Amino acid sequence: MFIQIFTTGGTFDKVYFDALSDYQIGEPQAGELLQQARINGDFALQSLVKKDSLELNDADRDLIHAAVSACPHRHILITHGTDTMTVTAATLADIEDKVIVLTGAMQPARFRDSDAPFNLGLAVGALNTCPDGVWIAMSGRIFAADGVAKNRIAGVFESK
Amino acid sequence: MFIQIFTTGGTFDKVYFDALSDYQIGEPQAGELLQQARINGDFALQSLVKKDSLELNDADRDLIHAAVSACPHRHILITHGTDTMTVTAATLADIEDKVIVLTGAMQPARFRDSDAPFNLGLAVGALNTCPDGVWIAMSGRIFAADGVAKNRIAGVFESK
Amino acid sequence: MFIQIFTTGGTFDKVYFDALSDYQIGEPQAGELLQQARINGDFALQSLVKKDSLELNDADRDLIHAAVSACPHRHILITHGTDTMTVTAATLADIEDKVIVLTGAMQPARFRDSDAPFNLGLAVGALNTCPDGVWIAMSGRIFAADGVAKNRIAGVFESK
Amino acid sequence: MFIQIFTTGGTFDKVYFDALSDYQIGEPQAGELLQQARINGDFALQSLVKKDSLELNDADRDLIHAAVSACPHRHILITHGTDTMTVTAATLADIEDKVIVLTGAMQPARFRDSDAPFNLGLAVGALNTCPDGVWIAMSGRIFAADGVAKNRIAGVFESK
Repeated sequence: MFIQIFTTGGTFDKVYFDALSDYQIGEPQAGELLQQARINGDFALQSLVKKDSLELNDADRDLIHAAVSACPHRHILITHGTDTMTVTAATLADIEDKVIVLTGAMQPARFRDSDAPFNLGLAVGALNTCPDGVWIAMSGRIFAADGVAKNRIAGVFESK
Repeated sequence: MFIQIFTTGGTFDKVYFDALSDYQIGEPQAGELLQQARINGDFALQSLVKKDSLELNDADRDLIHAAVSACPHRHILITHGTDTMTVTAATLADIEDKVIVLTGAMQPARFRDSDAPFNLGLAVGALNTCPDGVWIAMSGRIFAADGVAKNRIAGVFESK
Repeated sequence: MFIQIFTTGGTFDKVYFDALSDYQIGEPQAGELLQQARINGDFALQSLVKKDSLELNDADRDLIHAAVSACPHRHILITHGTDTMTVTAATLADIEDKVIVLTGAMQPARFRDSDAPFNLGLAVGALNTCPDGVWIAMSGRIFAADGVAKNRIAGVFESK
Repeated sequence: MFIQIFTTGGTFDKVYFDALSDYQIGEPQAGELLQQARINGDFALQSLVKKDSLELNDADRDLIHAAVSACPHRHILITHGTDTMTVTAATLADIEDKVIVLTGAMQPARFRDSDAPFNLGLAVGALNTCPDGVWIAMSGRIFAADGVAKNRIAGVFESK
């Protein structure tokens, strides 16, 4: 199984820039985490956008849609900020013949206690087993993309 | 989805004991990793055995079989050493009406660059989506338990 | 050697709050890191302020001065944001009969690749060996507090 | 301050080799940890031996002595297994005009909760402030090399 990863930023890739006293989106972390996981199979990673997902606009989502549509591979993994993950997922619903899984993190992958490695494993589990369609892998659950919402207060994704 | 975790030892839980200048099986790590992953749902963890999987014997496997059979929950996650994971999986094949997923790690969960959090996510992905049966979640893949072997030299699980 | 730790916030203790999409000062990390380091000796930790050091004001510094002055112990370790560490250090210069060491971090202690554990070790090294006075332990160096400046562009402390 | 690092193995550098179901000495970790600590100054690292310190013999110690003696730099940092750290330190006592600091770890540097980064910071603190001689930086303390012993049961170094 070949996995094409598209990264779009979000907490998953946040890094601290001391010179700015601020956190910003850094280099994508998913590739390093997959190598660390010693997966049996190849993957490629392309960074499409580096934004907090609250700042993603229509042009960004058009770009993501175009990249996924044009991708020759069937298994697509997208790392994405959690706040508008379902919005982007909805725009991908018309793409056929692909298993598309979005995941993200509540704590940056660079943190020692991040949920990022687990969530990435969860997403790859979904790529292995889910039929064509758009899926969200968060909070230890795999949701159909149109049946889930983020509960911001509780910090979890849940069925809607 | 309630997840019942049974731990059996293996590299996943190895810890270094300085007083012995040796590594041994320590306390199970899966519970802490699930909390860190902020999963939406409850789970329980029971430690059945603490052994390197090369040292598991028939009595240990009988114990594991009995615990899984007697468990009232449908979703069972077993952490297990990788060297004989398929042997134990085979003994569980007669258990009905349960989704049983075995996973493990090539590097102890206490290592910074361990594959353990990813593998645990992969296993939980399988619990979400696989039908009843026995499954092995390793190397970024979800395998039917009777169709996989560990390639010890390459350090990956692959279809046989 | 008993070590009294006073924490004041800074990058050292920053944590990500997903509900706010923002980083803020979290619980002090120095105590956990000292336990992890298995030090031979006792310590106590008191949180005085939780601020980015650019936001510390005169009242905060008066509070820090009062706490250090009133402390019955000789060895004082202060974790502090890096941007105004030298300003706070200067206000402590009149305190006698104490070894006062300030340290901090360029990357939050919760990051896997943080400089925080190393810097804490460096500071404890200074507590072991430096005479009474105020010292800054950063960038692998131990500086007299009035002889050092942060080079914000280069991200290091250096002699001035 | 230029730091010359000599590595000799020990728990500090232990890594798990799955193919052997065993832990062995891996590549030296001190260089990566110093980079992570963003130290202000240059250093060089040379691996002299890769052994558990219980297995170091006279020939190994002659090699270490020769390397330190021949080194043109004044500040020497040696990473070493903890069980015979004081034995090696004693053989270096005749070397003049150098600050020699030995450190190690109770838990491998590759562990998430290792004492290795802290201990390395402690050792660099000693290099900054100690006079010429041989020093052991362990357990949050800096000891003259001939005044310390490892308490194997308690897992700490203490004055003898």
